[in-house]
Amino acid sequence: MTGFGERLRTVFADRGRLCVGIDPHAHLLEEWGLPASAAGAREFGLRTVDAAAGRVGIVKPQVSFFERWGSAGFAALEEVLTAARSAGLLVIADAKRGDIGTTMDAYGDAWLTPGSPLEADALTANPFLGVGTLDHTFDLAEAHGKGVFVLAATSNADAFTAQRARLISGDTVSAGVIAEVSARNAQHTPSGHWAALGFVIGATVDWTEAGLIAPVPPAPILGPGFGFQGAAAEDLARFGGAAPTVIVSESRSILSAGPGSLAARIEERANLYRSEGNA
Amino acid sequence: MTGFGERLRTVFADRGRLCVGIDPHAHLLEEWGLPASAAGAREFGLRTVDAAAGRVGIVKPQVSFFERWGSAGFAALEEVLTAARSAGLLVIADAKRGDIGTTMDAYGDAWLTPGSPLEADALTANPFLGVGTLDHTFDLAEAHGKGVFVLAATSNADAFTAQRARLISGDTVSAGVIAEVSARNAQHTPSGHWAALGFVIGATVDWTEAGLIAPVPPAPILGPGFGFQGAAAEDLARFGGAAPTVIVSESRSILSAGPGSLAARIEERANLYRSEGNA
Repeated sequence: MTGFGERLRTVFADRGRLCVGIDPHAHLLEEWGLPASAAGAREFGLRTVDAAAGRVGIVKPQVSFFERWGSAGFAALEEVLTAARSAGLLVIADAKRGDIGTTMDAYGDAWLTPGSPLEADALTANPFLGVGTLDHTFDLAEAHGKGVFVLAATSNADAFTAQRARLISGDTVSAGVIAEVSARNAQHTPSGHWAALGFVIGATVDWTEAGLIAPVPPAPILGPGFGFQGAAAEDLARFGGAAPTVIVSESRSILSAGPGSLAARIEERANLYRSEGNA
Repeated sequence: MTGFGERLRTVFADRGRLCVGIDPHAHLLEEWGLPASAAGAREFGLRTVDAAAGRVGIVKPQVSFFERWGSAGFAALEEVLTAARSAGLLVIADAKRGDIGTTMDAYGDAWLTPGSPLEADALTANPFLGVGTLDHTFDLAEAHGKGVFVLAATSNADAFTAQRARLISGDTVSAGVIAEVSARNAQHTPSGHWAALGFVIGATVDWTEAGLIAPVPPAPILGPGFGFQGAAAEDLARFGGAAPTVIVSESRSILSAGPGSLAARIEERANLYRSEGNA
C-alpha cells in the first residue's frame, strides 16, 4: 500500500501541483447558466471533473456547496467523487470535519473508508477539539493510503483569535498543531518519504508571524488562497522549506472562466505552476 | 418573530431542559437490532423522535452518524428532522460546521434556511477559523428565530491545546469565543431576553481552569457530557450563574435503554432534571 504522501509526490511529478476546486456556489451556478439546485451542482461538478481530467492531478470538491441541497446535494457529490476518482484524479474532500470520540470517527469512516458512498482520497479536518480526536481518522487514512489535511494556519484576520493564541510552551496553536501531527508522522513515515498526514496553510500566511516552521518529516500542505484570493505562483516562496509539498489550490480564478473556457483556463494555470519551481 | 433564546426559555418552562441525543452509531444500531445502514439510522432516529415527543422539548441528531451513510444517510436525517419538528420538538443539528467566507455561509444556509431540506432550529458551529466567519450564519439565525451554538469549551483532555491557549489579552481562547459572541448578543438581544447565539460547554468543564464567566446577556448553553459521560444533575452547579440556560444533553444514557424501554428512560431522565433546579 503506497502511502498518501508518496501518492501525492507521484501526482506532482506526473501532473504538477495545481488542485482545481469544485465550488458550485450560487453565484458561479448563475454565471454558468445552471440552476441553483442539486442538479446544478451535479452538472457543475461533472463538467469541472471533465475539464480537469488529464490536465491536472488533483481536485477538491467543497462539501458545503453540495450540503446546501441536503441529501440530493450529497447524491450529486457522490457522482462527482466517483467521476473524479474514475478519471484518475486525486480527490480531496474539503469538509473540515471536527468532533470528539466516536462522532469524529464516523466522519472519518464516511470519507475515507474504501467503498463508502462518499469515499475520497483525503479529507480536511478541524483540530479545535484536539489533534488527538483525529486519531481514528489518521489510523484509517494510513491503513488505506489516504490522507488527512489538518487545519493549521489560515490567513483570514478572523482566524487569529484561536490560531495565533499561545500555548504554555510559548508556541502558537498553529505551530502546536503542526508539531503534534508531525510527531505522529515521524513514527509512521519511512525515511525519505512524504508523510500521509498534512496541513491546511493559507497561501498568504506570514510564517514568521504565525510561528511556523517546515514540517518534519515533509508533509502534504494544502494551500488555499492562490488565484482569485490574491496569491500568485511566486508566493510559493512564502512556504520556505515546505514549498516542495505545497498543493496550490485555486477555485474561483479557474471556475470563473465558465464552462466554455474552463479546460483552457485549467491548462494555463497548471502550466504556470509547472514552470514555477516544481517539486 | 420570537428569538431562539426566548423560544428555548418557553421550552424549558413547558418541557424542561433535557435534550435527547439521536446518535445512531454502529454499536447502538446493533444493540437495537437494526442494520448498520441508512435504513437502520432512519428507523433509530424516527423511534427516538416518537419516544421523545411529548416527554421532552429538545432533540439533537448527531449528523456524523447519518453522514456515515452518504446521501442515503442524509435522506434518513431529513426524515428525522422533519418528524421531530412536526412533533413540536426543538431540533439542534449537531454538525459542528466551520469554514470561511461563502463556504461557511453555505453551511449556515443548509441548516438554518426555512424550507431547506436539512432545516433545523439550531446548528452547532466551530470557531477555529474565527468567530467572524460565522457572521452570515448568525444573521440568518437571528432573521428566522433560529439559534447557533458555538463550540467554546469541551472537557476532553485533547481539547486543551487549542481551547486553553492564551490570547494576547491573557484570556483563554474559550473565554475569547464567549466574549466575542456575547458582544454581538448584547447588540441584538432585547433587555431581559435570552440571546439567540449560544455556546457548547462540556458538563464537566472546570470553569475556573478554563477561565470562563457566565455569558452576558444570558445565552443558551448546550451541555454535552451528562449521563453516560459522567455528569449528573448536580453538575449543573458547575455552570454557576450560567446554569439557568443550560440544555442538559444526554445520548447514550438514554439510547442504551433500547427501543422497548426508551420512552420510560426518557421520562425518568427528564423528571430528574425537572426536579433539579429548573430555569
